Amino acid sequence: MIKESCGIMGVFNHPEAAKLVYLGLYALQHRGQESAGIVSTDGEHLYTHKGLGLVSDVFDESSLEKLKGHSAIGHVRYSTTGSTSLENAQPIVSKYKGGTLAIAHNGNITNSSLLRQELEGRGSIFQTTTDSEIVIHLIAQQSSNDFLESLITSLIRLKGAYSLLVLRPNRMLALRDPSGFRPLCVGSKDKGTYLVASESCAFDIVDAQLLREIKPGEILEFTPDGVHSHHPFADAIPTFCVFEFIYYARPDSLVGAKSVHSIRIRLGKQLAIEHPVEADLVISVPDSSNAAALGFAQQSGIPFEFGLIRSHYVGRTFIEPKQQIRDFGARLKYNTVKSIIAGRRVVVVDDSIVRGTTSRKIVKMIRDAGAKEVHFRVSSPPWQYPCFFGIDTPTREELIASSHSIEEIRKHIGADSLGYLSLEGLKKVVPRTIGCCFACFDGNYPGGRPQDFHKKILEMPFSIKKT
Amino acid sequence: MIKESCGIMGVFNHPEAAKLVYLGLYALQHRGQESAGIVSTDGEHLYTHKGLGLVSDVFDESSLEKLKGHSAIGHVRYSTTGSTSLENAQPIVSKYKGGTLAIAHNGNITNSSLLRQELEGRGSIFQTTTDSEIVIHLIAQQSSNDFLESLITSLIRLKGAYSLLVLRPNRMLALRDPSGFRPLCVGSKDKGTYLVASESCAFDIVDAQLLREIKPGEILEFTPDGVHSHHPFADAIPTFCVFEFIYYARPDSLVGAKSVHSIRIRLGKQLAIEHPVEADLVISVPDSSNAAALGFAQQSGIPFEFGLIRSHYVGRTFIEPKQQIRDFGARLKYNTVKSIIAGRRVVVVDDSIVRGTTSRKIVKMIRDAGAKEVHFRVSSPPWQYPCFFGIDTPTREELIASSHSIEEIRKHIGADSLGYLSLEGLKKVVPRTIGCCFACFDGNYPGGRPQDFHKKILEMPFSIKKT
Amino acid sequence: MIKESCGIMGVFNHPEAAKLVYLGLYALQHRGQESAGIVSTDGEHLYTHKGLGLVSDVFDESSLEKLKGHSAIGHVRYSTTGSTSLENAQPIVSKYKGGTLAIAHNGNITNSSLLRQELEGRGSIFQTTTDSEIVIHLIAQQSSNDFLESLITSLIRLKGAYSLLVLRPNRMLALRDPSGFRPLCVGSKDKGTYLVASESCAFDIVDAQLLREIKPGEILEFTPDGVHSHHPFADAIPTFCVFEFIYYARPDSLVGAKSVHSIRIRLGKQLAIEHPVEADLVISVPDSSNAAALGFAQQSGIPFEFGLIRSHYVGRTFIEPKQQIRDFGARLKYNTVKSIIAGRRVVVVDDSIVRGTTSRKIVKMIRDAGAKEVHFRVSSPPWQYPCFFGIDTPTREELIASSHSIEEIRKHIGADSLGYLSLEGLKKVVPRTIGCCFACFDGNYPGGRPQDFHKKILEMPFSIKKT
Amino acid sequence: MIKESCGIMGVFNHPEAAKLVYLGLYALQHRGQESAGIVSTDGEHLYTHKGLGLVSDVFDESSLEKLKGHSAIGHVRYSTTGSTSLENAQPIVSKYKGGTLAIAHNGNITNSSLLRQELEGRGSIFQTTTDSEIVIHLIAQQSSNDFLESLITSLIRLKGAYSLLVLRPNRMLALRDPSGFRPLCVGSKDKGTYLVASESCAFDIVDAQLLREIKPGEILEFTPDGVHSHHPFADAIPTFCVFEFIYYARPDSLVGAKSVHSIRIRLGKQLAIEHPVEADLVISVPDSSNAAALGFAQQSGIPFEFGLIRSHYVGRTFIEPKQQIRDFGARLKYNTVKSIIAGRRVVVVDDSIVRGTTSRKIVKMIRDAGAKEVHFRVSSPPWQYPCFFGIDTPTREELIASSHSIEEIRKHIGADSLGYLSLEGLKKVVPRTIGCCFACFDGNYPGGRPQDFHKKILEMPFSIKKT
Repeated sequence: MIKESCGIMGVFNHPEAAKLVYLGLYALQHRGQESAGIVSTDGEHLYTHKGLGLVSDVFDESSLEKLKGHSAIGHVRYSTTGSTSLENAQPIVSKYKGGTLAIAHNGNITNSSLLRQELEGRGSIFQTTTDSEIVIHLIAQQSSNDFLESLITSLIRLKGAYSLLVLRPNRMLALRDPSGFRPLCVGSKDKGTYLVASESCAFDIVDAQLLREIKPGEILEFTPDGVHSHHPFADAIPTFCVFEFIYYARPDSLVGAKSVHSIRIRLGKQLAIEHPVEADLVISVPDSSNAAALGFAQQSGIPFEFGLIRSHYVGRTFIEPKQQIRDFGARLKYNTVKSIIAGRRVVVVDDSIVRGTTSRKIVKMIRDAGAKEVHFRVSSPPWQYPCFFGIDTPTREELIASSHSIEEIRKHIGADSLGYLSLEGLKKVVPRTIGCCFACFDGNYPGGRPQDFHKKILEMPFSIKKT
Repeated sequence: MIKESCGIMGVFNHPEAAKLVYLGLYALQHRGQESAGIVSTDGEHLYTHKGLGLVSDVFDESSLEKLKGHSAIGHVRYSTTGSTSLENAQPIVSKYKGGTLAIAHNGNITNSSLLRQELEGRGSIFQTTTDSEIVIHLIAQQSSNDFLESLITSLIRLKGAYSLLVLRPNRMLALRDPSGFRPLCVGSKDKGTYLVASESCAFDIVDAQLLREIKPGEILEFTPDGVHSHHPFADAIPTFCVFEFIYYARPDSLVGAKSVHSIRIRLGKQLAIEHPVEADLVISVPDSSNAAALGFAQQSGIPFEFGLIRSHYVGRTFIEPKQQIRDFGARLKYNTVKSIIAGRRVVVVDDSIVRGTTSRKIVKMIRDAGAKEVHFRVSSPPWQYPCFFGIDTPTREELIASSHSIEEIRKHIGADSLGYLSLEGLKKVVPRTIGCCFACFDGNYPGGRPQDFHKKILEMPFSIKKT
Repeated sequence: MIKESCGIMGVFNHPEAAKLVYLGLYALQHRGQESAGIVSTDGEHLYTHKGLGLVSDVFDESSLEKLKGHSAIGHVRYSTTGSTSLENAQPIVSKYKGGTLAIAHNGNITNSSLLRQELEGRGSIFQTTTDSEIVIHLIAQQSSNDFLESLITSLIRLKGAYSLLVLRPNRMLALRDPSGFRPLCVGSKDKGTYLVASESCAFDIVDAQLLREIKPGEILEFTPDGVHSHHPFADAIPTFCVFEFIYYARPDSLVGAKSVHSIRIRLGKQLAIEHPVEADLVISVPDSSNAAALGFAQQSGIPFEFGLIRSHYVGRTFIEPKQQIRDFGARLKYNTVKSIIAGRRVVVVDDSIVRGTTSRKIVKMIRDAGAKEVHFRVSSPPWQYPCFFGIDTPTREELIASSHSIEEIRKHIGADSLGYLSLEGLKKVVPRTIGCCFACFDGNYPGGRPQDFHKKILEMPFSIKKT
Repeated sequence: MIKESCGIMGVFNHPEAAKLVYLGLYALQHRGQESAGIVSTDGEHLYTHKGLGLVSDVFDESSLEKLKGHSAIGHVRYSTTGSTSLENAQPIVSKYKGGTLAIAHNGNITNSSLLRQELEGRGSIFQTTTDSEIVIHLIAQQSSNDFLESLITSLIRLKGAYSLLVLRPNRMLALRDPSGFRPLCVGSKDKGTYLVASESCAFDIVDAQLLREIKPGEILEFTPDGVHSHHPFADAIPTFCVFEFIYYARPDSLVGAKSVHSIRIRLGKQLAIEHPVEADLVISVPDSSNAAALGFAQQSGIPFEFGLIRSHYVGRTFIEPKQQIRDFGARLKYNTVKSIIAGRRVVVVDDSIVRGTTSRKIVKMIRDAGAKEVHFRVSSPPWQYPCFFGIDTPTREELIASSHSIEEIRKHIGADSLGYLSLEGLKKVVPRTIGCCFACFDGNYPGGRPQDFHKKILEMPFSIKKT
């Protein structure tokens, strides 16, 4: 299971700012389930509430009441750096010489170790293990009295991926790194109310309208005087995370004016073109692969069916009975509809294969349900390289495609055939207007491979056997 | 939203009995999310753990460790009688002159008020407001020293629906009322281990095999000497709850040797035959209507699409922003995929209409997404009569179909056309081998309308306008 | 450490009834720290809040707000029967054929096992392990429609000690068993408001006036029409628990119109007369022995000093460091003031010796602080017999005085001399007007030794060596 | 009620270091009840557990188990700066360029605002509102690689009161400011184990021995190589907080080799000499004034009695019944023993008068109990000036003695006579060997009145009317 990185949401100038952010975080919950937080401002003070768990667990009426004011930013988190603890929950709030500010960050700063070392050398004390805190320390070190200037001077030091929301008592800022790795879009609601969110589905839930995506390298500054757009960075090649299309984003979100769902339908169609197979039915690994499976069915003419049922109550499951239960982990989440599968030739479509463990269990469950043949189709290319730009990523060694041929993987998962979407196929489908990062598939990291990245990832063998 | 009643699970003779019950309750979570409980026995004592909330919230490793022994029964609950409180959580454990026993109950006893009055008249004191407690008091009042005899003499007093699990230190009993309103099936795993569950999906999760359904009026007694089947009741006409097929049961469960999913596919096909329409795509209200929508698509030849996305993180949502947000409740749970819907003629399939409120919001969302036409199709007949047999049911007045014509309902929900499955169509689809209760559609309550049912339901007007 | 049994408090006809009960329970907290509960009524419904822990932990503003109405009863508990669990917390509320009632009980019913057996034989089901629940079952079994009659018929079945408060929507009843083992007094505040409490200190905290003690065997019935006194029982010899004077009651409470403090002063004086000793100072084991120690000092002319300091933050202390710490348990609670003790001949006065363990540690601490001599004086006779009437009592074997001579005890605790108050001395001091139970000292149990008492106590050897 | 500031405890080189600290904090609980925390080290990592509430609430077996290692420091807190929140709980743990360190602080830094401003100016970001965090930031800013040197350079910047414990993986440091405002002493236990605590009572509870007090301006460094004493500061006049003698310290603690209790006895005696009165009995406001009252009784020959009983279960009391209850606040905590007081002339001894509110209620309670005369005696001089050195202090305006003559105070509290100990009398009693700060009585703040102290205190009128 690939873990989402983070989702952020901001509302500027609305009498119920914190409540709208709360609802927006609801819609962004798929981007992070470890912690949630909101910081609001009434123009004078910042009010904070953060907690571990789901949005619905962290907030209640009384905690929302206390988040006073007309503007607010929020964050849901799955840790990419830093351990799971309340201290690391965002937004991070700090007092420094310029006053108070709050930051919500989605992404991963690739030169964080070097920056942290430098800042500690100058006497900075870190309270969290997140690299988001680095941004605040950089700002606090600036001598300028102009906040925007201090912010820009600080951002210039950063490498990697960052979509940021900054809240100060009198303004809100929203920005994306020059490469635009992570998504961020701006919307409006009623007169003078602006919203910013990782995905447009957060606007739908509060009945707001998507205006446009924030551009790579753009800083949007929301002030009582109006909205200002700044472009302080040198131009860079846009490298939007292609995995947002494949898996992360909600299907009902729009990216590049296209619904993610419709792109996934096309991924499925392209997959059917590249890896046709004679079969009786197409099923998806729900829910993330529903669209790709349907696309595969539409293109191939093989009927789409619901052959795997997913339980949505899984939550924490801590026990692993000693008594051997076959395919235990997968059983908690999925079950087969035997009457659909028995005696049939089944195409099962999934969005990606990480370690291969779950795929193997799913294939086995389908066979146990009586399938005559199981053809595994993956709506993305073989995932061979870890992500340094904000995705919780296994080490290289754990990525089965980094060290195994497709035939080896097929044998491992026990399928009768296995087909991955080609990189060319993927590139054909994703919107032309959006330059993408394909590093997880081709190893071409924008800006080069980070030099100071987390040791455990650095230690991975980087010469890979390909067959 | 229709609320599930309850789910029960029992395991006899397995070294990890409580853990298997825990996993089974996981799979039955859709039948009740208010409280969960397990009682186990080591042949001497009963061990209990109950709590409010989901199975994953109520239990942790340490509470499971304390549930010692080789046999256990469990319960997930949505209240049909009694208010939501820990006291009402099941299984109910009691000490009486015959020793200790625990009971887990799915169903609704229709003469509970009379029985309660009678028992209180004889000096019984009730600790819960559940009618499940009545069974225990009846047993405690029996003079026989033979437990089975006491149980049967007690059960004979009951009217209505009850699928029961009873745990005593040296045995487990599983039984269904003579009409077999609620489901209950028996399975096995390894040598000498028996399992009982509301639905067969609970066997799949623990890698056990479904043996068969417990028959209406049958008592299965699991003892160290073996399993005994008793049939103490006079024969009754079987009246299995048809709503288990339409909505309650998980699609991957088997009822009458058919998967519920395949029956729903057929409901959708029959619906397409009865209410054809020219349209561009068929979408479902996920997830409960997925199968019916797919069946409709297959029969009609109109392409199936995922036009509504459901959020699975909803949980408790307590706030209703003052700021008007259109279709607020529905937005939390559903969002449209605009690119799929915009400019198209949409058939939306749902399993039932209760008050019409949610249907209205869904139609509106689909229109807002740009649909040219919205055709609403319901894979069950108009729901006009409340259930007295274990479903959490609105009062008559709240059931929109009890007082409005189909045309009025169509106008209310704002659809271009509205089609319900006919009762005849429904009867055609459900398995012949299983006699069903259709009272919610035709008002023919098996055994007659209960005389002492909850006052608020009794007070409903029972003369209904039909058009 | 002797554990208190229970404290009860009731308020009839006051707009803030539950709050006054809450404050009264505060003042009665020394009588029970395991659980606390209040039930109130507005003339129609009963409202309940109970919890484990101290009064200040169990209640907060919101829980008090919910305890609506003009009358309320409350309870603090240290278990004499039944284990520590929320189920056993009082008041117990029940629905039975006559409606709802709540009961708060201080005392111990000595024929509870027989009664329970009888009731279970008739089909009653018990939800708690308290013997207070028996009273409710007995009432529920009565056929009379008159509540008072049912209550009296039930009470006649009881043996042992019970001070009871009963709350019904339209009345409150307060009563003591015919022997008057446990205290209960009645007070008033403003016009028409009546209060009942275990001790008069609960009236002081709410600024109410003590009217008088409820008489042994008296039932006071508070109704909207006025207060009625009933005396339905045959006369019995009053046997008030003498330990209330020695240890249980708060010194600022009045019993028999005398302050408990002044009686303890006199116990100390009598002790000094019976066991004079040449010494430099008298110290108490605070706080329960302060008065007796002061009385000893006053009579003997030896200066009173504070030589032992008691920590009031002890609460739960769960750890026992592996590393040997001398007199660990006592150190948590007491510390010596070395400059007071060093080089002096010390008289230490305690109210009683139970197992001798704590006394031994205290003597050792005093010696370690440099005392030249330690003379231990006890302001009650040797405690040899367990209590069956409401005190949490060790078994006979654990009472050191039941099997050891005074000289043996002196050696065990390591004192230079040991003197107990004589039974005659004790009888001289306690008020003549109040007949007392001295069974813990002389074994003369009023009504004879209970026949069906808890097995573990019955199994104690009852032939005792005396020297 | 005067609030304690803080208590600190450290253990170096003991296999159960954290448990000993836990027990020591128990004994120091009177110095702070808002939060508690322990940090331990195993020579490599620091382990932290902190929480709001009493020591017994914050820690349990499992949290203590996690505090691994051979050395540990702990803290109980009542806030003098910073608000009550978990963030402000100590010890504070930080990572900086030199590694990790933890700090526990008792005292108040009087130039904290200036230092904070300076540090923020250099880019430091503060996470707490405590001034203890300043110390860490100063250390982080030092360029030296030698920790001791960095520490000393940092400490030189501080003004005011600080007794500090510093824990690093390989050493523990304990130090007092050059004036020695707040206490700190060192003890030992077994071979090679050293302990440091605010008061010696913390050694008694763990069976350790007091070695001596740490000297004003001394830094004790505990390392695997041994203990080193450093005296890096210029000599200053010692100004130990005289209120430790009067009220703060536990009576069983030793200061300057004298027990605090015996000093308080002498304060009472001196008070009796200065303000004799004809009366029948002397009572104390328990427990803090017990010793002074006893001393007064011994000197005057008037019998000592327990006339006020204190409840030790008070804890949080949140409700103030609308129904008028006279002297409500005091009643929760104190009650009178009427039989002792009625008809008598009573001397009541208290340690200090702050606002006069409680004194007034106590006098009224004593009168209501029937006292013929009430003579109030205070075992310290009139408290006129707020403390800047670590005591939670009311503003000047709230100190009744800052603006009222003694006669006015007497009238306000309703006593027949009022006598304060004279400053000369106080100076006579406190040990000669210990130079004291008397600023709360004479306004002579050591080092002058702080210039940048909290604004609300600065705003107090500093010209005071004396009569």
